[in-house]
Amino acid sequence: MRWTVHGERTLYDSDWLRLTLVDVELPSGDRFEHHVARFPAPACATVVRHPRRGILLLRRHRFVVDSFAWEVPAGRVDEGESPEDAARRETTEETGWRPGPLRSVGSFHPMPGAVDQTFHLFVAHGAEQVGEPDEDEAPQVDWKPVEEVRRLMRGGSITDGLTLVALYRALDE
Amino acid sequence: MRWTVHGERTLYDSDWLRLTLVDVELPSGDRFEHHVARFPAPACATVVRHPRRGILLLRRHRFVVDSFAWEVPAGRVDEGESPEDAARRETTEETGWRPGPLRSVGSFHPMPGAVDQTFHLFVAHGAEQVGEPDEDEAPQVDWKPVEEVRRLMRGGSITDGLTLVALYRALDE
Repeated sequence: MRWTVHGERTLYDSDWLRLTLVDVELPSGDRFEHHVARFPAPACATVVRHPRRGILLLRRHRFVVDSFAWEVPAGRVDEGESPEDAARRETTEETGWRPGPLRSVGSFHPMPGAVDQTFHLFVAHGAEQVGEPDEDEAPQVDWKPVEEVRRLMRGGSITDGLTLVALYRALDE
Repeated sequence: MRWTVHGERTLYDSDWLRLTLVDVELPSGDRFEHHVARFPAPACATVVRHPRRGILLLRRHRFVVDSFAWEVPAGRVDEGESPEDAARRETTEETGWRPGPLRSVGSFHPMPGAVDQTFHLFVAHGAEQVGEPDEDEAPQVDWKPVEEVRRLMRGGSITDGLTLVALYRALDE
């Protein structure tokens, strides 16, 4: 059963996100306004696997939640760009490694109750080093053996939802 | 290496979320304003397992992304409430099943680049039926065998990030 949407008004708009209030009615008859953050562009993440090196990770500080954590390369899909092209570009820019052929492993919604964002997931097999990591994005770039990645996931050292879903999906195949 | 935060101003405020612009400087010297959505309350999710019945799921329509998907019981932590108490309350309210003893299986950030939200994860073993599902939240509540849940996860029928991380974490133990 769906909630009925009677209307939507914009509270704030920018190139980066739009905040709206949606007038909704529940099956029980309750009616209220619900905040929604709308992002104009989806994002993508890539799990780069290498038979000897393992999995390519970045250690980032995220000021929004004030924490350091290991993440996979990820970023916003630019206008006119496919999610796959964005995944290849972001991986290369952030880490200095150009990934081998990419394969889609699905997509998901990180916060479908309040945010309309979609995250697209890719796995790449192999990579070639073509440059240096982006100092702004990823001061530390490392290949980690698969077993160490599983330990980091279980031990709570990976706290980014996009990275967690991408890694679980890639390791679940 | 951290981004330097020079200041933060509020664009919009409510009980539900606060939208801000943060003045940040990157290691390279680039300086710009970055949108952040701040949620005053964390959220929680519960994977309820039953030795015979399987895992407790809800089928919900999410108007924000206009899609139906299977989810675990989840919701906002109320003021003064612990994440564990919220997980127990939300599970009971949404599904009509009161979960057995809860165990924390970690937490994560669904969108740490733009949103400060934290999701807390719990696993419960066993449940007792004490009421009916909430018609507004969960028109369909079902126990699914673990193997079917794994198939739904692989097949793309589960698209909610909180549900995916909670299930992967619970099934990874």
